[in-house]
Amino acid sequence: MMLSVQSDEHFMAEALREARRAADAGEVPVGAVVVSNGRIIARAHNMTETLNDATAHAEMLAITAAAGHIGGKYLDNCTLYVTLEPCPMCASALNLAQVSRVVWAADDPKRGFSLFSPTLLHPKTAVNKGLMAEKSSQLLVDFFKSRR
Amino acid sequence: MMLSVQSDEHFMAEALREARRAADAGEVPVGAVVVSNGRIIARAHNMTETLNDATAHAEMLAITAAAGHIGGKYLDNCTLYVTLEPCPMCASALNLAQVSRVVWAADDPKRGFSLFSPTLLHPKTAVNKGLMAEKSSQLLVDFFKSRR
Repeated sequence: MMLSVQSDEHFMAEALREARRAADAGEVPVGAVVVSNGRIIARAHNMTETLNDATAHAEMLAITAAAGHIGGKYLDNCTLYVTLEPCPMCASALNLAQVSRVVWAADDPKRGFSLFSPTLLHPKTAVNKGLMAEKSSQLLVDFFKSRR
Repeated sequence: MMLSVQSDEHFMAEALREARRAADAGEVPVGAVVVSNGRIIARAHNMTETLNDATAHAEMLAITAAAGHIGGKYLDNCTLYVTLEPCPMCASALNLAQVSRVVWAADDPKRGFSLFSPTLLHPKTAVNKGLMAEKSSQLLVDFFKSRR
């Protein structure tokens, strides 16, 4: 048995690092990592502009990459860390992949899935939110300020 | 200006052809096509098993392919035909892509997006349903029967 010595803060800091990569590429700064057995098995940031694809959210790319790493479509032994509350598409994708735990930083009061239905996530998926929320929000504020 | 001479039935028959391809590959038979200016610009079927990816629904693959064809992420001049009512993930993806119209065949009373919230689709997206629903349902029934 492998015990994780890394904290949630460590992995969210990695998700924030992905978000900064998105901003550097002119993308809305959202980042995600997927962790299994205390190890990052997938990392991604929002690439909707780069890929010309409205579905290329950080979570979607991270889920697909993690499933590819595992060689199976269920992520029931994984935690996804993401810097912003998932939208309904991503929450539903996390449900389909049966992710065991989701940790997000900032809430998204305009487009977050909880606006529509908290039951979009799988009933077995554990949720933590608010971790390093200010750092994530500041990245988003700075990004949109620089775009004006 | 190009006028379409093809009917909704024609394009749904093409989506059903994709669904049969899914069944032939051992995938739950759901197919989709995206039509712009009377022409099919993308076609896809469910590939969740083949790709080991719970997000690889027919609609997601079709949206990504259509955006790639257009070279832009918005499908606001497109109709998506799909053989089964979209799940919440796919409905939300259609929303993000601002698809102008969605036509589905069979309702999905267990996993369809309308179970959660009809507002998952974009308010500007026109919806038609029930077209060739029996053919789609029969494909699904036959598939699950053959698996027992």
